[in-house]
Amino acid sequence: MSSTAGKQGLVAVEEARRFMVDCLVKAKTPLAHAKQQADLLTEADYRGHFSHGMNRLEMYVNDLAKNACDGAAEPTILKETPATAWVDGNNGLGAVVGNFCMDLAIKKAKEVGVGWVCAKRSNHYGIAGWYTLRAMNAGCIGMSMTNTSPLASPTRSKEAALGTNPISVGAPAKDGDGFVLDMATTAVAVGKIEMQRRKNEPIPVGWAQGPDGHPTTDASVAFDTACLMPLGGTELTSGYKGYGLGAMVEMFCGVLAGANYATKIRKWTHAGADSEADLGQCFVAINPACFAPGFEDRLSDMNGILRNMPMTDPSHPVLVAGDPERNHMKKVDSEGGLAYHVNQIKTCTELSERLGVKPIVVV
Amino acid sequence: MSSTAGKQGLVAVEEARRFMVDCLVKAKTPLAHAKQQADLLTEADYRGHFSHGMNRLEMYVNDLAKNACDGAAEPTILKETPATAWVDGNNGLGAVVGNFCMDLAIKKAKEVGVGWVCAKRSNHYGIAGWYTLRAMNAGCIGMSMTNTSPLASPTRSKEAALGTNPISVGAPAKDGDGFVLDMATTAVAVGKIEMQRRKNEPIPVGWAQGPDGHPTTDASVAFDTACLMPLGGTELTSGYKGYGLGAMVEMFCGVLAGANYATKIRKWTHAGADSEADLGQCFVAINPACFAPGFEDRLSDMNGILRNMPMTDPSHPVLVAGDPERNHMKKVDSEGGLAYHVNQIKTCTELSERLGVKPIVVV
Repeated sequence: MSSTAGKQGLVAVEEARRFMVDCLVKAKTPLAHAKQQADLLTEADYRGHFSHGMNRLEMYVNDLAKNACDGAAEPTILKETPATAWVDGNNGLGAVVGNFCMDLAIKKAKEVGVGWVCAKRSNHYGIAGWYTLRAMNAGCIGMSMTNTSPLASPTRSKEAALGTNPISVGAPAKDGDGFVLDMATTAVAVGKIEMQRRKNEPIPVGWAQGPDGHPTTDASVAFDTACLMPLGGTELTSGYKGYGLGAMVEMFCGVLAGANYATKIRKWTHAGADSEADLGQCFVAINPACFAPGFEDRLSDMNGILRNMPMTDPSHPVLVAGDPERNHMKKVDSEGGLAYHVNQIKTCTELSERLGVKPIVVV
Repeated sequence: MSSTAGKQGLVAVEEARRFMVDCLVKAKTPLAHAKQQADLLTEADYRGHFSHGMNRLEMYVNDLAKNACDGAAEPTILKETPATAWVDGNNGLGAVVGNFCMDLAIKKAKEVGVGWVCAKRSNHYGIAGWYTLRAMNAGCIGMSMTNTSPLASPTRSKEAALGTNPISVGAPAKDGDGFVLDMATTAVAVGKIEMQRRKNEPIPVGWAQGPDGHPTTDASVAFDTACLMPLGGTELTSGYKGYGLGAMVEMFCGVLAGANYATKIRKWTHAGADSEADLGQCFVAINPACFAPGFEDRLSDMNGILRNMPMTDPSHPVLVAGDPERNHMKKVDSEGGLAYHVNQIKTCTELSERLGVKPIVVV
């Protein structure tokens, strides 16, 4: 048991992966695809993005069970040039579509310097950073974006029209260091509002709107309204830039790929619906060797400059994008497993009973 | 004279361009290059970005005069693949380097789907949107970024390490409509703080830091400290995302191009220095025809969805990135010229006397 016994259950990383694979296979997914999806979800938890790991397993299993997503589907290339590809995800699992697209982008980047691949008819693809890490492992700069169900308000709009529309950009530095930006284009994700509500604490101005379209500080009102504000918050603090970034992601994903976009995407709360999501996604790989020699050295140098800036608060060192995840991975390694919330373990137990798979083993 | 006579001087767009060309030519710049730079500055004013138009002319003229920038320099290609190019700006004018790079990116996008061009040894390149508009005019999606002098603080840092590092992404829609995002990755530009200081009014939390590294609401303190906060403001409102975007621009520009980066870039207040800026810039063109057919139709449709969202305040319609500029261009057309501040006209008069060019004609 972890140090916070009673509240958390420690699960070895490999055991978490095993459990996810078993569940997905029981949900009509071929082993090879189940492994791809489980690798991604496990990595999310390992990196500390618990909302996008095991937490999503039940949703994927449900979608697979009711054929809202086709676990066996393989993506197909619809159109191709030396540097681009337009892919039909054929309603397959997000990780299967995303891995296919990023691997294609990497191949093109190795051949002509850049690969730019867009997919339509995809599904929730997990942490955007998974795909940029894949590019980084191949020595490339990676970029990945996806549209998502409407949950964020354009500046001045009373209602949501765009999703949290995340963007990730990753680049390799020396000795395993790197730069891994992975962010929603909204100020925060719904999970942060949920936590404040649970603690009965207010939220800052700029996180979310109330039903009148104005910012609210009431976490319960914010949670019920489900209308996030874009990065930057109100118009006064330049929220229109975050809105612009969210719309940019929508343009590169839904619009460029010919998938659903903006309010045409099904609601997040689509429970019961068996319609496909038809999400649009964008995967880019750039080969740094095509530009100035010594890219990784310079990126390491810049990381060093940033990490060594004088601190406003001596207990809070300046970080580089990817550092919080790096710190979390170290924590998992030292603790010997992923510290899941007790409710997450309960959900896993229910899933194992429902699907008839071996229960998850808590250390 | 415009309706705000005494405070503003109305100058025909073509006259503004003529004046800028004349001044640049007098500052050792060949006519063809002067025209490129003047086209860019005029467009900035036409689009309402007055800080980046005529306002910058004196700085360019001074840099050219003391050889900090070489008005006659032509960029050269250092390395090339079908989809990429690494360019040496040879310390030429920003517009000359940028136009060269974006035209090269467009050519590659037409040939292989994407063109990704990075330049080192460039100079201030004006509004980032100029280059995306160039790509849009060629039927492409355009992207452009530049690093700039340190003026923004990484989250948790007491001092500035990154520039305002703007990013622009533009895409063509039907009948001349489009999406034109053009934003600094800081919450605001220095100009906005200057305006509040002039009015003796406070600034919102999240725009800028004081000398202790904490946010300040005092416009004078903010102006003197010259340490902007990233888009998103404080850590609580996710300023680390804006910081991440600024660092991403630095990675794609200074680091990838092998130019100066972060604190290695000279200070904005480099007056008197004759060292070259060695800025890094990044220009990308993507051919939408390589993806789902009907891109422009879908983008127009999405623009329509966003513009017609229910308004929080009925007097403030929801806009799409590029709409404020579109509205400003209409205003200039209807007024018959650019409404420059009276101090700007004075500066032009001084410049014309100093350089011996025909004074600017105010309508």
